[in-house]
Amino acid sequence: MSENFCIATYRCYDDKADFAKKAQSIAVGLTVGSWTDLPEARKTEMEKHLGRVVSVTVHEPEGAAPGERYADLAIAYPDLNFSRDLPALLVTVFGKLSMDGKIKLLDLQFSVDFVSAFPGPKFGIAGVRNLLGVHDRPLLMSIFKSVIGHDLPNLREQFYQQALGGVDLIKDDEILFENPLTPLEKRVEACMNAARQAESETGQKLLYAVNLTGPTSQLAANAKRAINAGANALLFNVLAYGYDALHELSSDREINVPIAAHPAMAGALYPSPHYGIAAPLLLGKLMRLAGADLVLFPSPYGSVVMPREENLAVQAALVDTSPPVVTSFPVPSAGIHPGLVPLILRDFGHDVVVNAGGGIHGHSMGTAAGGQAFRQAISATLAGQSLPEAAAEAGNDALKAAIESWGYKE
Amino acid sequence: MSENFCIATYRCYDDKADFAKKAQSIAVGLTVGSWTDLPEARKTEMEKHLGRVVSVTVHEPEGAAPGERYADLAIAYPDLNFSRDLPALLVTVFGKLSMDGKIKLLDLQFSVDFVSAFPGPKFGIAGVRNLLGVHDRPLLMSIFKSVIGHDLPNLREQFYQQALGGVDLIKDDEILFENPLTPLEKRVEACMNAARQAESETGQKLLYAVNLTGPTSQLAANAKRAINAGANALLFNVLAYGYDALHELSSDREINVPIAAHPAMAGALYPSPHYGIAAPLLLGKLMRLAGADLVLFPSPYGSVVMPREENLAVQAALVDTSPPVVTSFPVPSAGIHPGLVPLILRDFGHDVVVNAGGGIHGHSMGTAAGGQAFRQAISATLAGQSLPEAAAEAGNDALKAAIESWGYKE
Repeated sequence: MSENFCIATYRCYDDKADFAKKAQSIAVGLTVGSWTDLPEARKTEMEKHLGRVVSVTVHEPEGAAPGERYADLAIAYPDLNFSRDLPALLVTVFGKLSMDGKIKLLDLQFSVDFVSAFPGPKFGIAGVRNLLGVHDRPLLMSIFKSVIGHDLPNLREQFYQQALGGVDLIKDDEILFENPLTPLEKRVEACMNAARQAESETGQKLLYAVNLTGPTSQLAANAKRAINAGANALLFNVLAYGYDALHELSSDREINVPIAAHPAMAGALYPSPHYGIAAPLLLGKLMRLAGADLVLFPSPYGSVVMPREENLAVQAALVDTSPPVVTSFPVPSAGIHPGLVPLILRDFGHDVVVNAGGGIHGHSMGTAAGGQAFRQAISATLAGQSLPEAAAEAGNDALKAAIESWGYKE
Repeated sequence: MSENFCIATYRCYDDKADFAKKAQSIAVGLTVGSWTDLPEARKTEMEKHLGRVVSVTVHEPEGAAPGERYADLAIAYPDLNFSRDLPALLVTVFGKLSMDGKIKLLDLQFSVDFVSAFPGPKFGIAGVRNLLGVHDRPLLMSIFKSVIGHDLPNLREQFYQQALGGVDLIKDDEILFENPLTPLEKRVEACMNAARQAESETGQKLLYAVNLTGPTSQLAANAKRAINAGANALLFNVLAYGYDALHELSSDREINVPIAAHPAMAGALYPSPHYGIAAPLLLGKLMRLAGADLVLFPSPYGSVVMPREENLAVQAALVDTSPPVVTSFPVPSAGIHPGLVPLILRDFGHDVVVNAGGGIHGHSMGTAAGGQAFRQAISATLAGQSLPEAAAEAGNDALKAAIESWGYKE
């Protein structure tokens, strides 16, 4: 990390541009505005505000078709020019520039000074493991099957069935907002009551990430209402409110529960090769710096796909041990069934949350068996057993049925 | 407008998809979750929460190359399913869906009930005109030449020179954050003092849109500090904080000055044909509903370009008289010089803010002459005079010099 520069890397497509010149014009234009026409005396004063070109790497394969020529430009921006918040940094490095042709923000390297303003996740991987008392295996999260139009007894029963399967976390649907059927505090009370009932039967602790919604100015108050009602985790649609809203929530001492960041709206920003913000930055580095304890992102296995390398780069940004903030739990989501557990653990390691919806509720023996099948698949994989081998063992009927329905990959 | 459905229109690219089926699966999946497997009794209860397919229009030109087949899908979402705020609506209609293949959110039609929660712009076109006492011509806005690293006397002098040219609004640079050289309140005091000095010479009223920055929870307080120090307008980087932050600021009774929305970061969202949110929605409808009195967006004339039809669609969304909130002032920005005034007025009509930076500061006779040249170009165009004709008249030396430097278009 640089002491006092934040470095932005862009990919810039242009069939003809002089990329070195373009990089120079960004470095000057987005900092001091103009340079060559400044009097020498002014230059001395202004130099500390001037952006610098760190590198320009042109990709110009011979015989490249039109539209294929691009360059990666790295520009260093003096910390002096912006305040210590993510809106200021993002507007500096990609405010006006985002509208200047085919250009995508690939990465940001935060300076030592900038990052020092961010406490980061309050819990992170180790903290979430401590809350659950689970240190030796990947975690299992499940999602309600359907929530809109359901009343409290129905939601409570869905929660209870999921909890019985041995899941570690249950999250609200991100599209469940404040509503008369299942208002925030009553929902928390009903679900946490189901969690306690299930715990008395399974011995399994459980985090319930209730969806934090409402007007921006009320988010912290709503979070505290949820916590006072018993919530032990929060789900938050970060991109709908901005990273700074997450940063303020995660920095609030009274919001003493893990926050799971949902990637809602992220697909408007990361998938284009030419525009937007790359997924490892959008859902990795920035979510973590802003304080997400768990981060959901599209898995490489489902219908909501992201190329595998990009998935792994998101995960790498969440678990990289070099930044001075604790790691965030990666939660690759969508299209997950028990037969994919060996693959997930190979792709993401053990510090991962296996997250399933249909793969739990759609189990032929019911929701509780759906959770059990995942737990059995996780245990087998950690023990070095193949899934068919494990499925044949006594007590693993749930896994057997899951494999019969959905197959498996090794 | 529908009474109680908000309608989202998407463009969805897929070479093979059954688009009717896809539309149906969105309508169900993003509302009640599942439908066909519900018991009949449940269906009766759930029907009011169920999304509806409004239309599916497939574009499948004969001999279409791979990647060219698309459909526009319109889906109606019951208001019952979300709270009356933009994060809830956006997460509902484009949260998870944004990550589901090549899909772009083109438009939103708000229901009567949804829109009733939004007071909209406090001033809008008529209100801004009233503040300035200017009803018979387009407005003129200018931008500081460079701000980072400048001290208060320097900024004050830049402001004064711009004001002398007869501009109606001066805006901060969007990358000027809280800083020791020109802190918010001192900057407001210095610039408003320059505004008063210029007014005593020109008789021209002036709005100064000071950049509103800082932590999300402090935005309203910072706005009020600026207003107490004399600020009579605000500039706000909406997309870095989310639309709801703008909505809360514009709804705050104590924030009784116009808010200009800056499009910083918008280029990460609108330019791809396959992903993101279309500009007329992103910078038009949503900015206005959230309460922007003036909206800056890329002009079709400069280096930061947007196709002309898209520009006009942004403008149309800002000035359309059918919604129950007042209109917002369109501010097409970048690449503007006095020679473009006839074109701007033809493209955007008279309810437009002509916004220039280099086209004012770069004037061969100085900054004040830069503003004068624009005012002369506006007067000539409104009088039906060609620019060369006007430039030849006595007293229009500034316009003459501008046309010599930059040329003109009719």
